[in-house]
Amino acid sequence: MSDRSGGLGPPVRSEPVYRGMIVDLRVSDYRRPDGSVVRREVMDHPGAAVVVAVEDDHVLLVRQPREAVEEFTLELPAGKLDVPGEDPLGCARRELAEETGRAAATWRAAGGFYTAPAMLTEFIHLFMASDLTPVEARAEGEDEMIEVVRWPLGDLGRLIDEVRDAKTLIGLLRLEREMRPPG
Amino acid sequence: MSDRSGGLGPPVRSEPVYRGMIVDLRVSDYRRPDGSVVRREVMDHPGAAVVVAVEDDHVLLVRQPREAVEEFTLELPAGKLDVPGEDPLGCARRELAEETGRAAATWRAAGGFYTAPAMLTEFIHLFMASDLTPVEARAEGEDEMIEVVRWPLGDLGRLIDEVRDAKTLIGLLRLEREMRPPG
Repeated sequence: MSDRSGGLGPPVRSEPVYRGMIVDLRVSDYRRPDGSVVRREVMDHPGAAVVVAVEDDHVLLVRQPREAVEEFTLELPAGKLDVPGEDPLGCARRELAEETGRAAATWRAAGGFYTAPAMLTEFIHLFMASDLTPVEARAEGEDEMIEVVRWPLGDLGRLIDEVRDAKTLIGLLRLEREMRPPG
Repeated sequence: MSDRSGGLGPPVRSEPVYRGMIVDLRVSDYRRPDGSVVRREVMDHPGAAVVVAVEDDHVLLVRQPREAVEEFTLELPAGKLDVPGEDPLGCARRELAEETGRAAATWRAAGGFYTAPAMLTEFIHLFMASDLTPVEARAEGEDEMIEVVRWPLGDLGRLIDEVRDAKTLIGLLRLEREMRPPG
């Protein structure tokens, strides 16, 4: 049986409990295949895109303040889809430009994943980008505390030991996997 | 500068907006190093542990209904810390036993990661477990719709293509990385 088979249905009843800036929270009841009904707290999220961008044997990262976890984190460029159903590649291009000031001529989709499927609808689409060129300066309104970091690919193992953001770890482990010689 | 340096302070003001079964949501204001104040929606979570358990050249997974994303997902055994500050290894042992009916004689901590550091405090501790033995049947009260899946290590690449859960992808990519011959 495939992981993607055996879909579950939409909720039979849903009550919004909070509408926020980033997150909408609802309490929903779902009917299971056996007929029982379970209640879940669900955070709705439009989805996101994350980009592994390689430039001159370096991978591009952003260091930014993440107040929720009270740390500065080192992350791959990423951002939310503007609306559910937005083309994920369009989102990836926009975030790469806004966060790092680069455009990429070569893009490849590399799957995706749910961030926290027990409670959050967010699905993150992963893209590999190369053939980078500078574009206009970073978007106005972007957080001025975001710093672009170019990390040498020769030292990728140490970066993997250092990052503590799930989507970034996935992107970097995939990059390392693709870089290693076959066999 | 290390990813783990440059911590940010706790909120200067916090307002709970929802107290749920799994999730507590608050709106908090943080003072940044430059003196400005930013407002964030933060979901508090006690943290979690996830286990890569290998038995007779198979990795152990659980297939379970994840209503929030309306799919059955294939995931590594994992679960929440009972309380913030619970020993993560203790949590990992408990979840492995409850979800798969196994104990492991050999454990190794393999780092950890934030699930969604923009909005969720959850930090997941990753453990590698081996030398497995059966323990008592799965805990009562465990979800009867959870199915244990033993996946052959020889087919790990296909599993990595199939899973869509972030913590599971990280655990499996790390396992594959450790299995490959050096050099």
